[in-house]
Amino acid sequence: MIFDILTIFPGIFESPLRESILGKACQRGILTVRLHNIRDYAPDKHQMTDDRPFGGGEGMVMKPEPIVGALEAVSPLGPTPHVVLLSPQGRLFTQDVARRFRTMPRLVLVCGRYEGVDERVAEHFVDEEISIGDFILTGGELAALVIVDAVARLLPGVLGNEASPEAESFAEPVLEHPHYTRPRDFRGYKVPEVLLSGDHERIRRWRRMQALARTRARRPDLFSRLVLSEEDRKLLDEYDRLAP
Amino acid sequence: MIFDILTIFPGIFESPLRESILGKACQRGILTVRLHNIRDYAPDKHQMTDDRPFGGGEGMVMKPEPIVGALEAVSPLGPTPHVVLLSPQGRLFTQDVARRFRTMPRLVLVCGRYEGVDERVAEHFVDEEISIGDFILTGGELAALVIVDAVARLLPGVLGNEASPEAESFAEPVLEHPHYTRPRDFRGYKVPEVLLSGDHERIRRWRRMQALARTRARRPDLFSRLVLSEEDRKLLDEYDRLAP
Repeated sequence: MIFDILTIFPGIFESPLRESILGKACQRGILTVRLHNIRDYAPDKHQMTDDRPFGGGEGMVMKPEPIVGALEAVSPLGPTPHVVLLSPQGRLFTQDVARRFRTMPRLVLVCGRYEGVDERVAEHFVDEEISIGDFILTGGELAALVIVDAVARLLPGVLGNEASPEAESFAEPVLEHPHYTRPRDFRGYKVPEVLLSGDHERIRRWRRMQALARTRARRPDLFSRLVLSEEDRKLLDEYDRLAP
Repeated sequence: MIFDILTIFPGIFESPLRESILGKACQRGILTVRLHNIRDYAPDKHQMTDDRPFGGGEGMVMKPEPIVGALEAVSPLGPTPHVVLLSPQGRLFTQDVARRFRTMPRLVLVCGRYEGVDERVAEHFVDEEISIGDFILTGGELAALVIVDAVARLLPGVLGNEASPEAESFAEPVLEHPHYTRPRDFRGYKVPEVLLSGDHERIRRWRRMQALARTRARRPDLFSRLVLSEEDRKLLDEYDRLAP
């Protein structure tokens, strides 16, 4: 899969794309990430990429020409791209969006100043506008890295055989159950007995109960979207009876 | 402000902390980010930091000893820290959380494998568990960078005088209005006439109308939490009458 990233700070991407799982995926050719400096496409001699907002107000706004110039230069460099502008005004990035992006041969990610890109870019020159959450970053670069990471780990061969990416969180809107590993006793804190029982059905039910209960406690927004089965209701009742 | 980051991939952080606004904040001493390799605190000679889950299942789980060992080593290195575990099972990071974190002299961010850290760490050794969104990353490192970035830009002096961080998105649950800058006509797409009018009151009302309408369209979850004023309702009615 190919990512083309448009940014005024290509240097930010260097170490995250060199290290760990993303680094290996790039080395093995499963993932190709190309960086393009928006500044190179600024038409004026000072290579300005931003300017004051029309109508007044604080802060600067990214100009449309350099971004659109970069998009047009990058567009012919591979299969038809899906173009995404990163901004806090976009729709939320979720695991569903990551799964949709994974099926695309090529994604172009446009990193603006996270606070302001001329609206004509979003309206006429990109396919969609995406936000990674309800917080403000200094730029879209970390948002782009988050998307590359979340999408890349779904590509065949990236995680190797160590984990099945599809068996994980957010296939339905529920948090994962707690995980435990050795030692059985860590400073007096013990692994729950059920996990040592070898009784797979009991373990499955305990994990489901924990997952439901923590989703209800921590993420009522997710819990309200969850379709509970008859068993789920029984498990939550049992949890509430056992809770201190 | 001091960040201590616990990770098995300290190299990931190198270029994002060197470049752009975060790099400048570190150079000027407004921000101190110290990296600690969890592997250095693994007790066994192979420096294993993860192991198979009790109760069976795919994937590996981060062991408690190396993380807790690192936390205990790092703890005396400054003011009393607030300790945050990054995981998709945490409460959501939002601009409100960024504002809360900004007031802390020192934050310790624990980056585990994003999918599984022994639950006893979350339960007994950290102050809170935070997720940056409903998607899965290969590790907590990019989540930690997102938090450093969102918090650092709220510190006095980091953004300079170029923008007032508090005047921005998510002070209330509403997306920002569209931004425009020069040129007035970009390939036939024009800046809305109202923004060139110089009529500050008309501009204010237009921007509010756009912000409300796009929040309603793109983020019904935010819109449902919004308390609309009498003027807000009139602006939305006006928008709906004008919409094609």
